[in-house]
Amino acid sequence: MCVKTTERSQEQKKKLLNRLNRIEGQVRGVKRMIEADAYCNDVLVQSAAVAKAIDAFNREVLKAHIHSCVTRDIRAGRDEVVDELVGTIEKLMR
Amino acid sequence: MCVKTTERSQEQKKKLLNRLNRIEGQVRGVKRMIEADAYCNDVLVQSAAVAKAIDAFNREVLKAHIHSCVTRDIRAGRDEVVDELVGTIEKLMR
Amino acid sequence: MCVKTTERSQEQKKKLLNRLNRIEGQVRGVKRMIEADAYCNDVLVQSAAVAKAIDAFNREVLKAHIHSCVTRDIRAGRDEVVDELVGTIEKLMR
Amino acid sequence: MCVKTTERSQEQKKKLLNRLNRIEGQVRGVKRMIEADAYCNDVLVQSAAVAKAIDAFNREVLKAHIHSCVTRDIRAGRDEVVDELVGTIEKLMR
Repeated sequence: MCVKTTERSQEQKKKLLNRLNRIEGQVRGVKRMIEADAYCNDVLVQSAAVAKAIDAFNREVLKAHIHSCVTRDIRAGRDEVVDELVGTIEKLMR
Repeated sequence: MCVKTTERSQEQKKKLLNRLNRIEGQVRGVKRMIEADAYCNDVLVQSAAVAKAIDAFNREVLKAHIHSCVTRDIRAGRDEVVDELVGTIEKLMR
Repeated sequence: MCVKTTERSQEQKKKLLNRLNRIEGQVRGVKRMIEADAYCNDVLVQSAAVAKAIDAFNREVLKAHIHSCVTRDIRAGRDEVVDELVGTIEKLMR
Repeated sequence: MCVKTTERSQEQKKKLLNRLNRIEGQVRGVKRMIEADAYCNDVLVQSAAVAKAIDAFNREVLKAHIHSCVTRDIRAGRDEVVDELVGTIEKLMR
């Protein structure tokens, strides 16, 4: 069922969790830099990398979402998924 | 000295660390959602918020950087800070 | 048929052309500024507005595309539209 | 004088005008596509390229601005240029 949960393959789940673990580690790294009074530009180089990593995660999930849930729902006539998708893409394109 | 470290006020430091703690909490929240097979779109709403939060952090640090280190270095004739700044802005504008 | 052409209502077509005419006018305005040696920051305020306007146009077309062609093609079993959409979103999220 | 006008070299001016002419041509191309009922995805591929081109123009002008006006003004003690720059970067990072 696609409306409340999404069944992901173990491989896909592991891949997404790995990405998130790396992002969490990067955020903690930036925290340590702020605590250690690191030079702003060095902080920015790291935190720009965090932004890139979260964007990549978002693209990955969006892709999987369109390929699985969106396609399935449209085929099943649950067209409300289309408005939902459009709203989410607007959030992501900020 | 601005080249290797940046002295931030206790208030500024606390504000930046609060932002990062919130971001770290949000990333962990997204991890729990993936572990619980949450619906892709619900994941995306949360992870889009993480992207927005890290962008806001980056803008905050960049602003402080330009106001303090960049201004100081240019005044002191350390013009290499300008190329560095331009490179960092390019990373952030991805 | 959705693969080669898209039939838009007169209203939708007019709306999109109005947006593009405004964008074209804005670009010409920026050109006149450069020709007149306008101050960089004044140029940037205008050209940032052009970027915003083209982003808004892109979101508008993407929304219409998902609502019409993508939905129709998925229903008709032409699933290649999904990969195409994902590729285009990646271009737009740059 | 940097406050109201910016003197650019003939070469730099020509380069910027070339970029803008190309962008104007691209926008007109997208208009022709809409007039000819072109397929949404084909429109999006072109209009995504316009967005990329205007972003590249903006980065170019911003870089030149920081290297010339901003540096000069800070050296001359006209620190209001810093707030102005920060405001413009926020507009560009949308």
